[in-house]
Amino acid sequence: MCPAGLYRLFAEDASNSRLGERAGKRYFPRRMNACIISVGTELVTGQCLETNAAWLSEQLASVGVQVIEHVTVGDQLQHLATTIRQCIDRFDLVVATGGLGPTRDDLTREALAQAIGRPLAENQEALRQIEAYFQRLQRPFIDANRLQALVPKGCSIIPNRRGTAPGLSCQSRDCLLFILPGVPAEMKAMAEESVLPQLGVRPGGQAIRIANVLCYGMSEARIGELLEDLMASGRNPSVGTTAKDAIITIRMVARAADPPGAQRLLDADVAEVRSRLGKVVFGRGDGTLQAAVAELLVEKRLTVGTAESCTGGLVAKRLTDIPGSSAYFLQGFVTYSNQAKTDRLGVPAEMIEREGAVSEAVAHAMAEGCRKVTGADVAISVTGIAGPSGGTAEKPVGLVYIGLADDRGITVKRFLFGEQLLRREIRDRTAKTALNFLRIHLLQ
Amino acid sequence: MCPAGLYRLFAEDASNSRLGERAGKRYFPRRMNACIISVGTELVTGQCLETNAAWLSEQLASVGVQVIEHVTVGDQLQHLATTIRQCIDRFDLVVATGGLGPTRDDLTREALAQAIGRPLAENQEALRQIEAYFQRLQRPFIDANRLQALVPKGCSIIPNRRGTAPGLSCQSRDCLLFILPGVPAEMKAMAEESVLPQLGVRPGGQAIRIANVLCYGMSEARIGELLEDLMASGRNPSVGTTAKDAIITIRMVARAADPPGAQRLLDADVAEVRSRLGKVVFGRGDGTLQAAVAELLVEKRLTVGTAESCTGGLVAKRLTDIPGSSAYFLQGFVTYSNQAKTDRLGVPAEMIEREGAVSEAVAHAMAEGCRKVTGADVAISVTGIAGPSGGTAEKPVGLVYIGLADDRGITVKRFLFGEQLLRREIRDRTAKTALNFLRIHLLQ
Repeated sequence: MCPAGLYRLFAEDASNSRLGERAGKRYFPRRMNACIISVGTELVTGQCLETNAAWLSEQLASVGVQVIEHVTVGDQLQHLATTIRQCIDRFDLVVATGGLGPTRDDLTREALAQAIGRPLAENQEALRQIEAYFQRLQRPFIDANRLQALVPKGCSIIPNRRGTAPGLSCQSRDCLLFILPGVPAEMKAMAEESVLPQLGVRPGGQAIRIANVLCYGMSEARIGELLEDLMASGRNPSVGTTAKDAIITIRMVARAADPPGAQRLLDADVAEVRSRLGKVVFGRGDGTLQAAVAELLVEKRLTVGTAESCTGGLVAKRLTDIPGSSAYFLQGFVTYSNQAKTDRLGVPAEMIEREGAVSEAVAHAMAEGCRKVTGADVAISVTGIAGPSGGTAEKPVGLVYIGLADDRGITVKRFLFGEQLLRREIRDRTAKTALNFLRIHLLQ
Repeated sequence: MCPAGLYRLFAEDASNSRLGERAGKRYFPRRMNACIISVGTELVTGQCLETNAAWLSEQLASVGVQVIEHVTVGDQLQHLATTIRQCIDRFDLVVATGGLGPTRDDLTREALAQAIGRPLAENQEALRQIEAYFQRLQRPFIDANRLQALVPKGCSIIPNRRGTAPGLSCQSRDCLLFILPGVPAEMKAMAEESVLPQLGVRPGGQAIRIANVLCYGMSEARIGELLEDLMASGRNPSVGTTAKDAIITIRMVARAADPPGAQRLLDADVAEVRSRLGKVVFGRGDGTLQAAVAELLVEKRLTVGTAESCTGGLVAKRLTDIPGSSAYFLQGFVTYSNQAKTDRLGVPAEMIEREGAVSEAVAHAMAEGCRKVTGADVAISVTGIAGPSGGTAEKPVGLVYIGLADDRGITVKRFLFGEQLLRREIRDRTAKTALNFLRIHLLQ
């Protein structure tokens, strides 16, 4: 939006940090320091949990911007204007979210105008975009929404395809500001489409492209080994990993002179990562294991049934998270008691007696029985010890058997998720591992 | 801990707000303005989601403290010390969490010492508490933990029964500071036991006691009507409501000259609220509907089975969230397809054809079949339209039937959760309503 200004971000004579500096700066530093301001009384009172700042921080890090501080303030004009002004003095980049709605307590536009000392005026382009949005939804445009077309002089607007509030961007002193709506889906789309591509561009490079590749079933350390050369410092694209709830995300950021060039670099790296990691990769961006499984089941026109013990229905719940899941999900059993395993799935009572309910034999019989009873193409079974009690030296908390039956036979795998995990975590890992087992199977 | 200082909080000549003021204050205002500082590089980079500030804000509001700002900063000594100092200048109360661990990147103790200009010294009481904690756990005391006994001169320590890091409290200029560990369970216990009881005490009152009463199945507006006199401004105990994901929390704060007096006032109000709202009340504090149901089932030695369609296993999953749930949960069905409803639960195919899978008759037959097949004392059935598609004018998205069968018969209720809700929200409301239906039934 303002490439000339952005180029200055990386001027050679810049210092590496402005923290604590107050004035007299003329250039942005090589590495931008950023602050994220979240606006909303419901956030500062704790009624709603603020999640935008964490997401933005991760995204900004992937384009080389270091977030130094998050600030959350309520919908109070003076406090908000003061906060924005102080952040302009202290940081190279400020991203604020929230307070762009059409009601009286949406004050971020006005606070920005005060903070940068420029008057608000109706922006024709913003008004046109808001009207177009209402037209697309076939909803009447109401006057309150006209407020959302007010823009401080000299600010640019950021298009919002998913909602009414356009975002704002401007430069004030040596600080670059972006103001986005608080609704996470709108904020994320606008950040990805309009904010991140403007940031982190090195001299000689004008465009960046980002990919987040999701993996399951391999440790972050092992992935790091396999991608060691790609993850070398200073390489383009840059490649890094993060782990959350057993899912490993590989973040790739490509820079080039123009967008097609950056896209080519990125595509080549994504292909390379996929080829090295193979089936460990299950999706991109906001993907989930259940979405990956659903896509494969629909594509292959296969149906699935579940037989769960320790997960208590969590695998079925996740398989039916996806709209349209009735296309592939037939039915599930939560056979919590031993009697239920026998009555519903035909697991022999004497087998449970001999081997224990948490055993390879029982997982095998559960998968076999589930497929037979439901008539599904594939059946998944789960039996394990979720804790906190019920573990023994031989069968500790966290021991889980997962079975899979199809027309070619039955496979059972044994997992030890570790006694240090909470019941909730063991059930989550077990459900993820069952979905991943099914996914890998469907890829064959 | 410092009652003389606290009494000044409510001196009569105090202004009502210090926002924007910088110096020259001598008294705390009647209503305290607070800032919460969250410390941790993993928070500011977005690797971990910060949740302490929201919880603390709600708790502080219940004792009359208004939280104005949340700030999150990384483990950087200078930045952290500057942030604490600036907050001391701007707020009446500062609560900081995190950075009290035993490693080199835990810098909050040192930052506090710099911010208030007092040297760190080993505190014998803190050392004794840390050693006692290790003894209790029969773990060896390592030298690194000695760091956690360092306390700025003039600060008091806050005992931590659940971890090694003691908290800190002190007064600097006209600001009261509390520093707590970042681990949520430790932070919450210490806030409830040592921080909240010191705050919000009116002249003439030395003790406060707090209760959070949880309700489901009545609108916040209707609860407000029924409790209108108790919620009158200035009353003691103070009574207020908040709503989150369809659960209404009633917060009660009692103040008196001594703790037993405050407890008596609180107990009387809790009893009054319970008597007015009756079965709408399902628990206190961190309670859940599934925990309330589990307690009743265990107490009455009853077993339960589930038959779910649109919730896809979520009701069974929640019933088995509770450790020891095998005492009452026998088995569950996720009869997603029509065929499964017929095969597993004996719902006549021609009934599904005639009435539709989402109908009172089918919910009735599902509950009846589930009880018969599982042999459970009580069976719960769920059928509905979770969306986003599949709705019609007659049967819109959000229409749900919930059935309950026991030895006295079968009851079915119809609910309209509203087309504006997301699939995820409709499934959550449906599961909660099914659990609540079961709970109310068990109370009879």
